[in-house]
Amino acid sequence: MPQERGAIVWFTGLSGAGKTTIARTVAERLQIANLKVEILDGDLIRQHLAKELGFSHADRIENVRRIGFVADLLGRNGVIVLVAAIAPHRAIREELKQNCEGFLEVYVNSPLEVCERRDVKGLYAKARSGLIPNFTGIDMAYEVPLAPDLECQTECETISQSTAKVLQKLVALGYISIDCRG
Amino acid sequence: MPQERGAIVWFTGLSGAGKTTIARTVAERLQIANLKVEILDGDLIRQHLAKELGFSHADRIENVRRIGFVADLLGRNGVIVLVAAIAPHRAIREELKQNCEGFLEVYVNSPLEVCERRDVKGLYAKARSGLIPNFTGIDMAYEVPLAPDLECQTECETISQSTAKVLQKLVALGYISIDCRG
Repeated sequence: MPQERGAIVWFTGLSGAGKTTIARTVAERLQIANLKVEILDGDLIRQHLAKELGFSHADRIENVRRIGFVADLLGRNGVIVLVAAIAPHRAIREELKQNCEGFLEVYVNSPLEVCERRDVKGLYAKARSGLIPNFTGIDMAYEVPLAPDLECQTECETISQSTAKVLQKLVALGYISIDCRG
Repeated sequence: MPQERGAIVWFTGLSGAGKTTIARTVAERLQIANLKVEILDGDLIRQHLAKELGFSHADRIENVRRIGFVADLLGRNGVIVLVAAIAPHRAIREELKQNCEGFLEVYVNSPLEVCERRDVKGLYAKARSGLIPNFTGIDMAYEVPLAPDLECQTECETISQSTAKVLQKLVALGYISIDCRG
């Protein structure tokens, strides 16, 4: 049964917290269930829609707004949009929540030390050595969500547990009706 | 019956040729038929996804690519996307045609004199007086489609005739199965 309502599930959190990994696993489950799903990854959107934007406060806000604009277009057409983008500023996340129907804020919470130890893309090392300025968690603040719709603590949860929580939330809120918790 | 396949109907042509007007009328018909439809208007996309881009050759290409990226995301999720954007360069329109499934090029053809006489947004007057450089048709070429999927000659067709042609084409190609030709 195809879904009627779309949703925007925004995974916010530090680089390396597990946003993209969880988004991908959630996407797989939804696709198996024949639902319409798109992953909007921060890097992908920068490449296609915001090449010229840097990582200053203003540019990050603009980048997040662009992702929100595209996510909303898809969401209102019945797609479950999984956004994996740091979106470090609380105010812009709140703005999106107000303006986009079916917006869920999922805080992918992992302590900085853990993210830095993982350093999947080698970005923390570069940031520490000063090669990447304005790096979230190092020399730019990450504003922790105060009341996220869901929190995944990836330090102590498995990917599969986090995925199950997200799917369960989507079922509970009526965005998906079939059981794809697997 | 909701449509299964999406499509990207790209209305290309000079400013004032009638792209947005036809797109809106087509959209109304499709919406009445309960189909999923979005209009991506060149100005709207510039405002939301390309504020910093100007009207140089390179910036226009980038803008058209951004519209194409968003249109493709929507189209592959079953939305009929009506794009009303000049897209003056043949090569980039061809690129999109190659890369986006269900891409239809609709040439909204109206002679420059007619568009200039209409001058709905007052842009031709500004362009002629040098206030808007790189204006398509004045000091930047519009590369006429060589083999568009459809041509609407708005000088001698009514909006309603052009609209009917577009809907008929969508039916003929199997993008819509219901009769919403009205």
